[in-house]
Amino acid sequence: MNDEAYMSRALELAKEALFAGEVPVGCVIVGPDGSIVGEGRNRREQERDALGHAELAAIRMACQTLGGWRLSNTRLYVTLEPCPMCAGAILNARIPELHYAAKDPAMGACGSVLNLFEESFGFHPRIFRGPLEAECSHLLSDFFAQTRRKI
Amino acid sequence: MNDEAYMSRALELAKEALFAGEVPVGCVIVGPDGSIVGEGRNRREQERDALGHAELAAIRMACQTLGGWRLSNTRLYVTLEPCPMCAGAILNARIPELHYAAKDPAMGACGSVLNLFEESFGFHPRIFRGPLEAECSHLLSDFFAQTRRKI
Repeated sequence: MNDEAYMSRALELAKEALFAGEVPVGCVIVGPDGSIVGEGRNRREQERDALGHAELAAIRMACQTLGGWRLSNTRLYVTLEPCPMCAGAILNARIPELHYAAKDPAMGACGSVLNLFEESFGFHPRIFRGPLEAECSHLLSDFFAQTRRKI
Repeated sequence: MNDEAYMSRALELAKEALFAGEVPVGCVIVGPDGSIVGEGRNRREQERDALGHAELAAIRMACQTLGGWRLSNTRLYVTLEPCPMCAGAILNARIPELHYAAKDPAMGACGSVLNLFEESFGFHPRIFRGPLEAECSHLLSDFFAQTRRKI
């Protein structure tokens, strides 16, 4: 599987979130052998949980799959730029490589509002934009346009 | 109950973490009526989970207790300055008031390395230092001194 295949799986999970009435965000974590070791999607409304972001679910699952809290030699793919909580979780889990598709001008903590990975927390994951930026961005903008129409 | 009583309960939870071999950090969340609606302690090693911080456990429990992801009108008390993940979770849960005891020069995201609450994320919780700063700091410094002796 290549970057596009992993992001494509994250996008599938984002669509699952959309069908459940959630902000459409999905995430996968890829282990050292290229297999998916963790995945998740936004469940904040469904679970009434402020921690219900896609990345946290994927990180928790990857820790269980790999049997430890250090996710060294993994890569995280997510359809939307992580917020401070999720970027902080990537630091705590020592994930060295992040790929995100859509930018988040309001809450993005990997370059938009600030870049947590450039701060002095002693760990500096590499950030890659994309692939599937357009698809992931459109899914989000369509969702917010529909939500506004309902109000 | 007053600030000291709430921080004292957080300190008890930190001591529980210590007895379990974890970095001693404890946290409580106080609801609008003054009762404790969420609490937690560090369980990262035990649960092999990068998300196993005291604050996330307390926030998850408070969301369940109060039946929603918005923890408006609550206060969070924690024995150690929150890291970026936990400070981000406080933003996501819209907790308006944070009390922390010990400073964290390595990972503190509420004034030490940076202050996430002063950034442009659209929500700015108030931060209070203490009470019980000395007790919470000593518990941590004793733990790290013992850990170093074991290595």
